[in-house]
Amino acid sequence: MHKSKLSGFIIDCNGPDLQGAAAFWSGALGMPARQLPGTEGESYVRLLDDQHGLHIEVQQVDHPSRVHLDIETDDIEAEVRRLEALGARRVAQIRSWWVMEAPTGQRFCVVRRSAPDFDAKATHWP
Amino acid sequence: MHKSKLSGFIIDCNGPDLQGAAAFWSGALGMPARQLPGTEGESYVRLLDDQHGLHIEVQQVDHPSRVHLDIETDDIEAEVRRLEALGARRVAQIRSWWVMEAPTGQRFCVVRRSAPDFDAKATHWP
Repeated sequence: MHKSKLSGFIIDCNGPDLQGAAAFWSGALGMPARQLPGTEGESYVRLLDDQHGLHIEVQQVDHPSRVHLDIETDDIEAEVRRLEALGARRVAQIRSWWVMEAPTGQRFCVVRRSAPDFDAKATHWP
Repeated sequence: MHKSKLSGFIIDCNGPDLQGAAAFWSGALGMPARQLPGTEGESYVRLLDDQHGLHIEVQQVDHPSRVHLDIETDDIEAEVRRLEALGARRVAQIRSWWVMEAPTGQRFCVVRRSAPDFDAKATHWP
């Protein structure tokens, strides 16, 4: 038995100007931007969502710009298998997370649990 | 002076099977699907998000599948102008809402306020 929930979304931005991309989305959504430390900060800027408790980041990417959803879980392998049974497919494993593709075509990621209220809000899967 | 906030997101799905698309995303996110009445129900299925209070829908579309964000506001014209000043551009007006494109390339929509807690959570813009 494991649990999962929507973690939030990543705003994938193609182009060299991560700080400019983050500044736009921070202003558009009314969410403060927070620089991340080390190498993570070279590719990601966090947007602080006090409105809904979502994990939101602006990411610099090489592929075309898009928005992708993240699902957080306490058991990545079990969650990936559950999503495969629903029709999704594995695309690539990157460090601790899996990139998947929905049967409707969108890419999304299965990541480790991180929300402080994960246990209270996540769905329990048999 | 007006207000706005992230409303949620729409999962745009290309293909003829709206109900199948909604079934996948309902199962993946652990959110019950609710059929919408009338012609709206021919293109949209609502996903009920008790976890974060987001407005989430699965939409049948003719363009490639993607996820797009919605920003809700109490003054659509003022919000569109604010976003234009940040670098976004107007794409098309559809009924009450505006489709816009971010300077980073993603499409998003500016829609009328609908969240019950809009006044408490929205950002006030001068």
